[in-house]
Amino acid sequence: MRAVLCAREPVFVQDHPEPSPAPGEALIQLRTAGICHTDLELARGYMSYRGVLGHEFVGRVLSASDGALVGKRVVADINAGCGRCEACARGDAHHCPSRTVLGIVGRDGAMADRFTMKESCLVEVPDSVSDDAAVFAEPLAAALHVLDDAPPGTEPIVVLGDGKLGQLIARAVVGSGRDAVVVGRHESKLALVRAAGASAMLESDVGSTLDGARVVVEATGRAAGIALALRLVRPRGTVILKTTIAGATSVDLSPIVINELRVVGSRCGNLQSAIDALAAHRVDPTPLIDAHYPLSEADEAFRHAGQPGALKVLLERRA
Amino acid sequence: MRAVLCAREPVFVQDHPEPSPAPGEALIQLRTAGICHTDLELARGYMSYRGVLGHEFVGRVLSASDGALVGKRVVADINAGCGRCEACARGDAHHCPSRTVLGIVGRDGAMADRFTMKESCLVEVPDSVSDDAAVFAEPLAAALHVLDDAPPGTEPIVVLGDGKLGQLIARAVVGSGRDAVVVGRHESKLALVRAAGASAMLESDVGSTLDGARVVVEATGRAAGIALALRLVRPRGTVILKTTIAGATSVDLSPIVINELRVVGSRCGNLQSAIDALAAHRVDPTPLIDAHYPLSEADEAFRHAGQPGALKVLLERRA
Repeated sequence: MRAVLCAREPVFVQDHPEPSPAPGEALIQLRTAGICHTDLELARGYMSYRGVLGHEFVGRVLSASDGALVGKRVVADINAGCGRCEACARGDAHHCPSRTVLGIVGRDGAMADRFTMKESCLVEVPDSVSDDAAVFAEPLAAALHVLDDAPPGTEPIVVLGDGKLGQLIARAVVGSGRDAVVVGRHESKLALVRAAGASAMLESDVGSTLDGARVVVEATGRAAGIALALRLVRPRGTVILKTTIAGATSVDLSPIVINELRVVGSRCGNLQSAIDALAAHRVDPTPLIDAHYPLSEADEAFRHAGQPGALKVLLERRA
Repeated sequence: MRAVLCAREPVFVQDHPEPSPAPGEALIQLRTAGICHTDLELARGYMSYRGVLGHEFVGRVLSASDGALVGKRVVADINAGCGRCEACARGDAHHCPSRTVLGIVGRDGAMADRFTMKESCLVEVPDSVSDDAAVFAEPLAAALHVLDDAPPGTEPIVVLGDGKLGQLIARAVVGSGRDAVVVGRHESKLALVRAAGASAMLESDVGSTLDGARVVVEATGRAAGIALALRLVRPRGTVILKTTIAGATSVDLSPIVINELRVVGSRCGNLQSAIDALAAHRVDPTPLIDAHYPLSEADEAFRHAGQPGALKVLLERRA
């Protein structure tokens, strides 16, 4: 079957072997997949992953041991826990040390005609949510997870970064009825932020206007963003780190101690919450779509997604 | 009068001008002062401080607008807030942006015959607490403050660093009836830890024995300690940072995001809590005393305190 492999560059192939579901796994047919910044990083060697790419998807279940799933349109929590360790026992498969992660760690991803996923990770998509919206469920869940570390009364939540993740976080905050200010570098992207109901500001205009923020979310993808976050947050405030920078970063950490800051790492979120937010129209991610490509044009789609400033590029299985 | 000034090296002088208390300030006569690592750093140029050194002290009030204070033996919270800003309004003088800090920022310290301090910062020392114990009140308060970020059920609390601060933190944890494991580099200091009722381990022996700690306190004074803390703590665990490293530090921050860690800065604590712990004999800091010097031999005392491995060196006013 067709698949997009993680090699030095993502490679579209026609003759990838069909997957065979293990017990407890569903066989899923792809409908739409999203290209994430992580996919681009994986292709550059991050996590030493080699296999089928793709962890943002909406698909249809072809077969499953749970008959009720068959025929359903689904998205998935990408972390498949081992089910036997201490982390899994406390319901925290996101931190199972033996977990596989769809299209990232030890498990072929969704950019293929068909793929498998642990059934317990699947979340059904209601008819009212389009493929173009549902394909954002995974990154939107990660965006909504920010709110778990930003208690009510900490507004406005300052979001550093106007890229795909910063945009989704702003929508997650606004969709929960709270105020967000996005700090970015691109007027066109800040316009998208404003259209979604958040405030927006160029990084060069920040000065001291945001000093004293109670919560700053770092989603720039750059080490310099961490230093800016530590500068903007007020004493005893919270910095939520979303950016994963592999390897050593040079940063002055003394403000953490002097100002008694709380720096919290934040990764994946709850897929059901994301689907609920989409179904209730609290969040509309579709203005973030830059382009649709057929799966067979994955190479071109990846080049598009890798352009500076590109927003979400989608791959559709079609026929 | 006599005083120990922060110059390129701490300088003992005989002819320092007498201080005159501002309204709301007490005039205090020194009894005993402790030399802190921060004093050594200040002398090397940290915070660009120039003035009388000393922020760990026990003294006697000579005069005060609050007559009840006169004649009392006291210690002090070293942060004197402006009393007018938003932070002070919410009772958080520790983070007042205009605060002075005894012997550190904009306020002459306690290593002098006499000095002044804001009366509202003073805490009376009961007769049952000796000068040698009371002089630890300030660093002990900072050590006890660690417990504010380590909720019950997170034992054993792993403390990185067997120096003065690590030793006090171990005693603070044990004194609250909880288990601590100190990781250090000096067998002699680890013996002190064990004598205080905590477990102890050489850093070279850690291996994976401490993997999965819920709370790790970083008090090594070295950037490498931060990396070790991030490695030892379990997913969703807490790293409490005590070490202030001025300037940029090179460290791999990606575990914070991948393991969704909580990194919390922790600085000064509550002086009354420290005095209470000393009065109740929950903590005995006196085994940490390396030497006593008269104030007039401050130069020699500072040389002693600056030796690698030195524990607490005290200065006594005497006659």
